[in-house]
Amino acid sequence: MPLLDQSSLIGFGFNPLNRLSEKRSDDAFVDGKRREASARFVVFVGEVPVFGVQRGGHDALFTYEQVLALGQPSSDIFLGQGDNRSGNAVDDTGDNPDQVPGLGQAALFAAYFDKDHAAPIAARADLDMVDLRSVALRGLVAPALLGELGCAKALLSWHQHHRYCANCGQPSSVSSAGWRRDCAACNSQHFPRVDPVVIMLATDGDRCLLGRSPRFATGMYSALAGFLEPGETIEDAVRREILEESGIACSQVAYFASQPWPFPSSLMIGCFAKALNNDITVDTTELDDARWFTRQEVANMLAGEHADGLSAPKPFAIAYHLLKAFVAGDVF
Amino acid sequence: MPLLDQSSLIGFGFNPLNRLSEKRSDDAFVDGKRREASARFVVFVGEVPVFGVQRGGHDALFTYEQVLALGQPSSDIFLGQGDNRSGNAVDDTGDNPDQVPGLGQAALFAAYFDKDHAAPIAARADLDMVDLRSVALRGLVAPALLGELGCAKALLSWHQHHRYCANCGQPSSVSSAGWRRDCAACNSQHFPRVDPVVIMLATDGDRCLLGRSPRFATGMYSALAGFLEPGETIEDAVRREILEESGIACSQVAYFASQPWPFPSSLMIGCFAKALNNDITVDTTELDDARWFTRQEVANMLAGEHADGLSAPKPFAIAYHLLKAFVAGDVF
Repeated sequence: MPLLDQSSLIGFGFNPLNRLSEKRSDDAFVDGKRREASARFVVFVGEVPVFGVQRGGHDALFTYEQVLALGQPSSDIFLGQGDNRSGNAVDDTGDNPDQVPGLGQAALFAAYFDKDHAAPIAARADLDMVDLRSVALRGLVAPALLGELGCAKALLSWHQHHRYCANCGQPSSVSSAGWRRDCAACNSQHFPRVDPVVIMLATDGDRCLLGRSPRFATGMYSALAGFLEPGETIEDAVRREILEESGIACSQVAYFASQPWPFPSSLMIGCFAKALNNDITVDTTELDDARWFTRQEVANMLAGEHADGLSAPKPFAIAYHLLKAFVAGDVF
Repeated sequence: MPLLDQSSLIGFGFNPLNRLSEKRSDDAFVDGKRREASARFVVFVGEVPVFGVQRGGHDALFTYEQVLALGQPSSDIFLGQGDNRSGNAVDDTGDNPDQVPGLGQAALFAAYFDKDHAAPIAARADLDMVDLRSVALRGLVAPALLGELGCAKALLSWHQHHRYCANCGQPSSVSSAGWRRDCAACNSQHFPRVDPVVIMLATDGDRCLLGRSPRFATGMYSALAGFLEPGETIEDAVRREILEESGIACSQVAYFASQPWPFPSSLMIGCFAKALNNDITVDTTELDDARWFTRQEVANMLAGEHADGLSAPKPFAIAYHLLKAFVAGDVF
């Protein structure tokens, strides 16, 4: 199968389910899907995914029977089913690339358990709980399953922090198979938030601009990033964030790829920007440092061979892919 | 000045203020800006902008004195100031393109009045209230001012529908010069929503796919569009929406431009998508019709000369610019 776009190769970006969004409000349809013997569930306790490990690897898919054996989930979400009617993005491994491995044509749900289920699950030798960043970092599941776990995690985080109606203050309730919250008091409908974030490399010929946040591991540098605001185009947000954090003004901006990022629920919009000056002024309230890196330095960082031990983000991050594209050649 | 990007030419997309986001939480700084004699205000009653008309045109900028003469605003927002430190997008009119006309280097705020101020303002011969869509449609203000009015409107809409903390249900309050709401009960900070929407043309060689919503004026067709969901890349959202609404599957997706759209607060992400089939199945719950249009037909629609009287969106909409680019030549 051909590679359709760069975005589908980035962590959490490959998500081939048919979401059947037009069926979400049909309770009988959704309940029928839930009870089909072929239906599968990804399972979260708090915000942490649960895996079966009885067969050696980490198995993210549970049957409804297996879910109920863990207790009564506090809620579930219908994620879709495994018929790739859309010609969606496919990976390039060649191994059943259109589908979530092990799902076939079946329905996929996410089931949520409260944190008080953590202790009994942690005690079971046939189950493992691994936070989602580590799942991505360790490559514990196939790309399509990582995409579904990310989608489920983003929805879960939104529900957890939006239990009340922002319009009137009354409790809201889950509706539309987990894709909406409704307020009975004022009739507002609330949809999951997706917060656009720009993440970008300013480039100056053979060099690109990277920064380090105080939160980063020692020696790690990455692309600058920030939330897009009301009244901004993607291009203006890119230029504003680079200017604010580093003092570098930019002209042209080129879109590269996007990534759903479930911490908690962002859309990372990856871009390149052409620098107009090269004298950096670091915004020390946001960054420990910002500096220019040559193509060769970046190549060494990606290979884990930088002379000073400096490192770059891992392949599940869109910043890694921006850097890889920069190393590969001219972006303007 | 050079044209930096397509996005800056689209309605609400030209927004050259320095937002000074790092200063928003400094109350003394913001109040100082508010009281500078050079400071200017755009004014809203409910969600409707107010204009001075004593000099013939529609003047969107008021002094603080003029604002207070209308009454005490219920709140205001610091939008930024007119020093274009960023090399931001510029228009191609050549007329002071970097700045909000009439603002110079000064600070710009948005002031909000409750709807009970509407009657006395409407009664004044030197003021006019015009809803923001009509302002854009009629080209009442310069592009940079339309951008600022759109930004102010998006923030206003968000505040109006988010008066309570979604995390705990208690009332929240405006903070950070209008760019945040804080909850004193649970210490949550809430930031303005920006909802990413994909809007796109599926293309099949010399033809592109347009649809009509039941909400459209008679004979109008436009690009398909829909909200991007958690767990989706931009490219996947484009393919899903086209498939859902028209039955057309697509392969490659190409980013074109973006537009802040303040109804209520979206980021329109304009794309082209390459169609894999051409047999349309209209989703009649969403659309009255969807059909293929040749380049020549689209050119006629943009010129207002379609033989059957069919029409396209106006230049302040990103769909117009997608259609114009399609008419101009190959997009893949």
